[in-house]
Amino acid sequence: MEKLVLHEYAPSGNCYKIRLVAAHLGLPLERRGYDILKGETRTPAFLRDVNGNGRIPVLQIGERFLPESGAACFYLAEGSPLIPEDRFDRADMLRWMAFEQYNHEPNVATLRFWLAFIGADGLSDAQKAALPGKRVAGEAALDLMDEHLRDRHYFVGEAFTLADIALFAYTHVAGEGGFDLARWPAVQGWLDRVAGLPGHIAIDQ
Amino acid sequence: MEKLVLHEYAPSGNCYKIRLVAAHLGLPLERRGYDILKGETRTPAFLRDVNGNGRIPVLQIGERFLPESGAACFYLAEGSPLIPEDRFDRADMLRWMAFEQYNHEPNVATLRFWLAFIGADGLSDAQKAALPGKRVAGEAALDLMDEHLRDRHYFVGEAFTLADIALFAYTHVAGEGGFDLARWPAVQGWLDRVAGLPGHIAIDQ
Repeated sequence: MEKLVLHEYAPSGNCYKIRLVAAHLGLPLERRGYDILKGETRTPAFLRDVNGNGRIPVLQIGERFLPESGAACFYLAEGSPLIPEDRFDRADMLRWMAFEQYNHEPNVATLRFWLAFIGADGLSDAQKAALPGKRVAGEAALDLMDEHLRDRHYFVGEAFTLADIALFAYTHVAGEGGFDLARWPAVQGWLDRVAGLPGHIAIDQ
Repeated sequence: MEKLVLHEYAPSGNCYKIRLVAAHLGLPLERRGYDILKGETRTPAFLRDVNGNGRIPVLQIGERFLPESGAACFYLAEGSPLIPEDRFDRADMLRWMAFEQYNHEPNVATLRFWLAFIGADGLSDAQKAALPGKRVAGEAALDLMDEHLRDRHYFVGEAFTLADIALFAYTHVAGEGGFDLARWPAVQGWLDRVAGLPGHIAIDQ
């Protein structure tokens, strides 16, 4: 595989997903950090050379740039056990990754960013107005995960896949956004299972 | 392939994506409609039998249910030219599909739904407050698409893929959400190209 460089903001769960995939697969990953709180992913150079969307993570593969955490995880994991061989299971993995990006991350991750990184006092009026809706939607996402995990070890089939990595990233730090994970015992059991797997690394590693 | 049933709300672009993939591949698709304005995807029966997330589309494959439009499109298109054979291009296709769901659909599609389906007078205060931000974000998504398409025929490589289908669905009806597509000429040219392909069907077909 060509040289891999992760353009990232280290505390971001979306960036952590890619590091976690690389760790499980034993792939070397060079890391290049940007402080999103200082706007370092909105500079003309970043927009021109790394990602016109002004966002991290971006996985650089040789001279090519791949934004979007799910796409980068998929690229790294193709041909590995992290992607199921069964056609339905493979699509079902993408289903949970889409759920994470659409229903989970904009609520669970955004509240963590707002409350633990910006801080409640620094929020705009629009952010303050959106907070209760995001709390309800984040709880609904955790409810759905808990119900799904009640009689399963992992999200798809009976194996650990990219779906688990995608959902682990922001769920295990949801407490920083004010979600009390004790409310979701099946989720807690699954978090422990994922964190106990060989090859696992922590978000601050 | 097992019998395919699409659980849908016909005017939804997310549902249209799946019909468009099936049309291009010549796959028969039985359609079952739900009126989301009447809450028909939030009934106990729907939540239990079709999708605990209370959302459409859901692709039913035999007795199994697959929510999320991107996952359903991927399931149908595996092994077809709609998914690139090259590893980087395949991931890059997923990247544009993720961009669509995260940066495009929550803005471009939501404004269409709010303005053309609910109507400006029926919006809640929270929706009214969110409207200007969604307008700016939707325009930014269209800007990025326009720049990308300036020297390309399709989003990934030089072929029509699921990325084009995913982005076509809500872009071609963005006018219903108050976006003036004349501002984005490269997008317009691409919309015409996609609509002119053999096998194409309209959203109301």
